[in-house]
Amino acid sequence: MTAIRGAYPVLITPMTEAQEIDWGGVKNNVNYFVNQGVAGIVINGSTGEFVSLSKEEKFQMVETILKEVNGRIPVVVGTAAETTKETIEYTKQAEAHGADCALIINSYYCKPKENEIYFHYKEISKAVNLPIMLYNNPFTSGVNMSTELMLQIGKDCERVTHIKESSGEIAKVRDLARKGKGDFEVFCGAEELVMESYLVGATGWISVAGNIVPKLVTDMYQHFQNGELEEAWAINDRILPLCSFLEGSGKYVQIVKRAMELTGQAGGPARFPRLGLSPEEDQHLKEILANLSIGTHV
Amino acid sequence: MTAIRGAYPVLITPMTEAQEIDWGGVKNNVNYFVNQGVAGIVINGSTGEFVSLSKEEKFQMVETILKEVNGRIPVVVGTAAETTKETIEYTKQAEAHGADCALIINSYYCKPKENEIYFHYKEISKAVNLPIMLYNNPFTSGVNMSTELMLQIGKDCERVTHIKESSGEIAKVRDLARKGKGDFEVFCGAEELVMESYLVGATGWISVAGNIVPKLVTDMYQHFQNGELEEAWAINDRILPLCSFLEGSGKYVQIVKRAMELTGQAGGPARFPRLGLSPEEDQHLKEILANLSIGTHV
Amino acid sequence: MTAIRGAYPVLITPMTEAQEIDWGGVKNNVNYFVNQGVAGIVINGSTGEFVSLSKEEKFQMVETILKEVNGRIPVVVGTAAETTKETIEYTKQAEAHGADCALIINSYYCKPKENEIYFHYKEISKAVNLPIMLYNNPFTSGVNMSTELMLQIGKDCERVTHIKESSGEIAKVRDLARKGKGDFEVFCGAEELVMESYLVGATGWISVAGNIVPKLVTDMYQHFQNGELEEAWAINDRILPLCSFLEGSGKYVQIVKRAMELTGQAGGPARFPRLGLSPEEDQHLKEILANLSIGTHV
Amino acid sequence: MTAIRGAYPVLITPMTEAQEIDWGGVKNNVNYFVNQGVAGIVINGSTGEFVSLSKEEKFQMVETILKEVNGRIPVVVGTAAETTKETIEYTKQAEAHGADCALIINSYYCKPKENEIYFHYKEISKAVNLPIMLYNNPFTSGVNMSTELMLQIGKDCERVTHIKESSGEIAKVRDLARKGKGDFEVFCGAEELVMESYLVGATGWISVAGNIVPKLVTDMYQHFQNGELEEAWAINDRILPLCSFLEGSGKYVQIVKRAMELTGQAGGPARFPRLGLSPEEDQHLKEILANLSIGTHV
Repeated sequence: MTAIRGAYPVLITPMTEAQEIDWGGVKNNVNYFVNQGVAGIVINGSTGEFVSLSKEEKFQMVETILKEVNGRIPVVVGTAAETTKETIEYTKQAEAHGADCALIINSYYCKPKENEIYFHYKEISKAVNLPIMLYNNPFTSGVNMSTELMLQIGKDCERVTHIKESSGEIAKVRDLARKGKGDFEVFCGAEELVMESYLVGATGWISVAGNIVPKLVTDMYQHFQNGELEEAWAINDRILPLCSFLEGSGKYVQIVKRAMELTGQAGGPARFPRLGLSPEEDQHLKEILANLSIGTHV
Repeated sequence: MTAIRGAYPVLITPMTEAQEIDWGGVKNNVNYFVNQGVAGIVINGSTGEFVSLSKEEKFQMVETILKEVNGRIPVVVGTAAETTKETIEYTKQAEAHGADCALIINSYYCKPKENEIYFHYKEISKAVNLPIMLYNNPFTSGVNMSTELMLQIGKDCERVTHIKESSGEIAKVRDLARKGKGDFEVFCGAEELVMESYLVGATGWISVAGNIVPKLVTDMYQHFQNGELEEAWAINDRILPLCSFLEGSGKYVQIVKRAMELTGQAGGPARFPRLGLSPEEDQHLKEILANLSIGTHV
Repeated sequence: MTAIRGAYPVLITPMTEAQEIDWGGVKNNVNYFVNQGVAGIVINGSTGEFVSLSKEEKFQMVETILKEVNGRIPVVVGTAAETTKETIEYTKQAEAHGADCALIINSYYCKPKENEIYFHYKEISKAVNLPIMLYNNPFTSGVNMSTELMLQIGKDCERVTHIKESSGEIAKVRDLARKGKGDFEVFCGAEELVMESYLVGATGWISVAGNIVPKLVTDMYQHFQNGELEEAWAINDRILPLCSFLEGSGKYVQIVKRAMELTGQAGGPARFPRLGLSPEEDQHLKEILANLSIGTHV
Repeated sequence: MTAIRGAYPVLITPMTEAQEIDWGGVKNNVNYFVNQGVAGIVINGSTGEFVSLSKEEKFQMVETILKEVNGRIPVVVGTAAETTKETIEYTKQAEAHGADCALIINSYYCKPKENEIYFHYKEISKAVNLPIMLYNNPFTSGVNMSTELMLQIGKDCERVTHIKESSGEIAKVRDLARKGKGDFEVFCGAEELVMESYLVGATGWISVAGNIVPKLVTDMYQHFQNGELEEAWAINDRILPLCSFLEGSGKYVQIVKRAMELTGQAGGPARFPRLGLSPEEDQHLKEILANLSIGTHV
């Protein structure tokens, strides 16, 4: 089994002006990230607008990307859905096409109770053979799982091998990493708390910023692994304005899509009702890129 | 055009033990509510588990119910979806089958910005000929629209004839009702603030409790309309424990489904990951029903 | 015993440029409000900067004002302190000088638990013979008392005759008014929810806006009492921009002090660290006053 | 000037059953902590019930303790008050009696604006010659200073040499430590985030738990300083249940007072309305102490 560790960009879904998936752009971007040397990638995540894609599109995305990557790097697939049944269906499809891991946030509209969340992951875990990365994100799903619940799921569900923590509470990352040792590994899911997460035991980062600075997030993790803390901190300081913009704007999808275009890769619009960046946001992004010495193509 | 006013039960989707839609139960329940004399009903709402239903199921629900109701009472259809495009598709389908109004909450996963929400309703309004009830609910969608935004949408979007307010802020109901006069009517969407909403200008209630006490919610509105405030307050006092249980438990779907069964109508399980009531919750429900002098069949 | 009912302005403490109490201004303002025909006044409240005054100053304020008012209208005195002992001391002093009621918020720094709050009011109630208005305000004290706690205190503590509700939750006002009937009366303490509070059973308002528009808040209550709802709503609509400014700015003390000056009464600076209004805030205040047809003297 | 660094217990104010200060206990406790080898102590802080003490008591506490300590370890004195004027008065008194630093939280009842907070610290800084530790704690004061404000105060106010951060946001600790380098040092003020704070640059901890486990918190800091991370983490893991109890219970004053008694030092009741521990809380404390191998005397 491939080890899932390090900084994984969570890809956008490139689209045409008609807001249809740009399949050429999909392949282009995948190869771009492989060539940049990233540890792995995530597809069909929140940044990939998974709730705005149809079932057929999500299925095709999995097929297309896994074929294109062809084992060069691990591919994590977002397979969450509102119902347990549909989540299992998506996860099995990802498994069938050779995904390395399924990233699964809890149901997002029904605000499930803790015993319902436990049930959900338990059922999924029993139904599939793919490693699962449980995903806690109160901002998108409206539910903030307790540390105790996540520890219990990680202990009881054989397939749950990772937990992505996006609540912004560093104590959760610490407690999951220290008390869950042996049961699962912890990934950072909060763009502004990456070094902090590594320092308390996280072994990876599902990274939105990694779309824009894939080399930097890769180097930062490597420095941290090598015990070169000052070098890692230096990169963290450097990318923090970008991370804060992504985390604070509420428009991370549009920022990444625009940045992909500005750096010569495939981006395009997001699906409505998401609208593009305002002139001020666009300018702010360009300044951030300039400060990161990233040349823009537009 | 039918006037949309008064207390409208927002129906559950009855299911079999296999969690498939119980179409006989659907028809049974609809006739039950017509016979109880309710002002109208809502289908495919949050209480109807709309995010847990497939597109085909939602379409069939509209067809089945509108045919069954056959114009006896107004039918409001929940037609929200994550994308603008799909919302329009659902709304047109409801229009095509003779719905009286579309209940539309903003996109629930992407946490849209105010200009994106404005764009969303504007596009829908331009695309359909059906009256629209805009729906603000920060608890399910994660977004709390400002009063200003809702007033603007109500003013600018020709089809938006109603606003359902579920934020729990009575000042929003008041400001919408007083400043939006002539542009739209306001419906209460907070089970614990019904009399308060009527008193500040709301002309209706999309009512979860109305599933369980259809006559009481109907009478309460009628008393209020007749200026019989003490009688209306008396009913409010009487149903408040039920309303609080529905609002506070986070399990309104399961409570209503169980109560439907207990009163001899069609309920059944909710779709996973939603789980049934705990023994304590079940007991609490039975006590509430007993206090309301509602006989149980189970 | 004087009935405590209606709209009571909660007075600022006028100060000189050196931030010392302007005793002449204190007397001037008191007579101004008596002449405006208000139902009563409150002194040493949050608007009076009670935590920024020394014990001696608070004592002298009580003496001075009760002597000046001389029974013409009821005077409510804020007598809260951090400790139970000191609260009793302040309350006894107010009682000794002829106050009509003591307004008492719970301890504000220690964030007391519900049993500690119960104990606090119970001890005070046993120690004094003055009517007490319990005051719930989570924004200033950091604690939001439950409805159940307030009902229990109101039932068990003989001296507690009123509850001032400032949480902004209209359901609390309703439940206190309806379930506490016979035990206590409820006063509105939320500037933006006055009509709403009256409509669900409040019999008075501790009013910050009443400093600036004493006649309007008095007339509004009178209209409501007379069943002239449209006239009451009309005033509410008219003063709402002022109420929202007071509630939303976080600078209600400075706004009232400035407005007192602008209307020819005594105001002056607040004690540091409170600073005066910014030019924008000052302009906004003047526009609000102009819209209320209040002439300014500066 | 003494360096202020390391883990500083923030002392309770021991009291007799009549809730008067137990001056013998005060001296006993001070000598106990000196003998335990702590880096320094804090008096008249939140844990010392400073808002529940009279001015005379606070003054006498400073005199008594500084005389008793007699330079053996640094003493930090809490000198906050609601007004700027009184805060300066307290700070000057502490300075006059040889305190090493003043711990100053912003005004706690008036919810000051950022420019008012800036003004407050600027005025204090100009008025005294004592090092100042600015203290940010939204839970007690109701205000959460922005990172930008704290950086600005730290840069502009000569006397501000330290910032105690208790918001629970580790990003604030990091940004203060990294961007404020040269201007001030950062102390942890969140019992559950100590290792995390050290790891991102904090050089000390104002420690409630340090009252109960003075040697452990001292050793933990020393291990961290020596680069012995595993040893530091081991202590952190061990004391975390105590830290969580202190942070989560809302009764840190009473817990520490009770624990002091249980370990043979001076504690006593807190001033009303604070009440003692419930039997369950008492039992929970004893279990925590037993797990820490702390013998109890009662």
